[in-house]
Amino acid sequence: MSKKVATLITNLFEDVEYTEPARAFKEAGHQVITIDKQSANEVTGKKGETVKIDKGIAEVNPADFDALLIPGGFSPDLLREDDRFGEFAKAFIQEGKPVFAICHGPQVLIDTNLLKGVDMTGFKSIRNDLKNAGANYKDEEVVVSKNIVTSRTPDDIPAFNREALKLLAN
Amino acid sequence: MSKKVATLITNLFEDVEYTEPARAFKEAGHQVITIDKQSANEVTGKKGETVKIDKGIAEVNPADFDALLIPGGFSPDLLREDDRFGEFAKAFIQEGKPVFAICHGPQVLIDTNLLKGVDMTGFKSIRNDLKNAGANYKDEEVVVSKNIVTSRTPDDIPAFNREALKLLAN
Repeated sequence: MSKKVATLITNLFEDVEYTEPARAFKEAGHQVITIDKQSANEVTGKKGETVKIDKGIAEVNPADFDALLIPGGFSPDLLREDDRFGEFAKAFIQEGKPVFAICHGPQVLIDTNLLKGVDMTGFKSIRNDLKNAGANYKDEEVVVSKNIVTSRTPDDIPAFNREALKLLAN
Repeated sequence: MSKKVATLITNLFEDVEYTEPARAFKEAGHQVITIDKQSANEVTGKKGETVKIDKGIAEVNPADFDALLIPGGFSPDLLREDDRFGEFAKAFIQEGKPVFAICHGPQVLIDTNLLKGVDMTGFKSIRNDLKNAGANYKDEEVVVSKNIVTSRTPDDIPAFNREALKLLAN
């Protein structure tokens, strides 16, 4: 069944951490809906990839989506300035919907305040932030816990996509 | 008396968060020593300012400095990939030496694991990371607690410099 994957993204995202999961999800028949502060924007990755934004955060309701993707780069830090992104992510974790976050993507999940006891990974620079948020940080290519799939860097994308696709197939 | 201010900095620093405190400290007679992973590098700020690196982190000892400056931007995130920067900062807090961190600069202080009960501010996006590290986050232009001076954004630089210079004058 085709799933709707909400994707939280803004400028300075790590290009392949959006393009590769998005391609894999679409190839498997799923829809990827990009969400930033405002719709109709075009955002630009660290390496120059441009992505059209489908929806503004004010226009979306977590209930309308089946899963959540948060690519890394500096995009998560920029999103966190606005409380609504953490609030949006919160609903997915609370309802046990699949959440996929890679590299710095887990920074947005910290703002859900729901990471206590969750096995997770993420980019090395945010390891202490994840630990302080109560997560069990693991230095592994992919970690799956409570429907939350996390990876560390672009090199982990094959493992990240593999585990994400498994949850989307359920 | 002239004080030696160790400055942890790498690429993508927020330009004025280095240039303005550095200028103010030098005008007051203090020395500013830039430290990155390697010496002899030149690093480039988000807006293109270049800064020559005086020392590599492996070459320096906290005992040789009187105070610590950590400018913001994405530089602190890049530094945090290397455990030695948090370790270096730790010695300053432990010995009660003045520590000045602005915007994302406090991210490096999280890695000292010494922020419990410290009144602090920082860029809005890292507020939950500071709270989870045990700090009392305050949304104020400058916060001084236990010789740690923190500010939120470039707009706060006058207040940040004023409080930093007071501690350097002691």
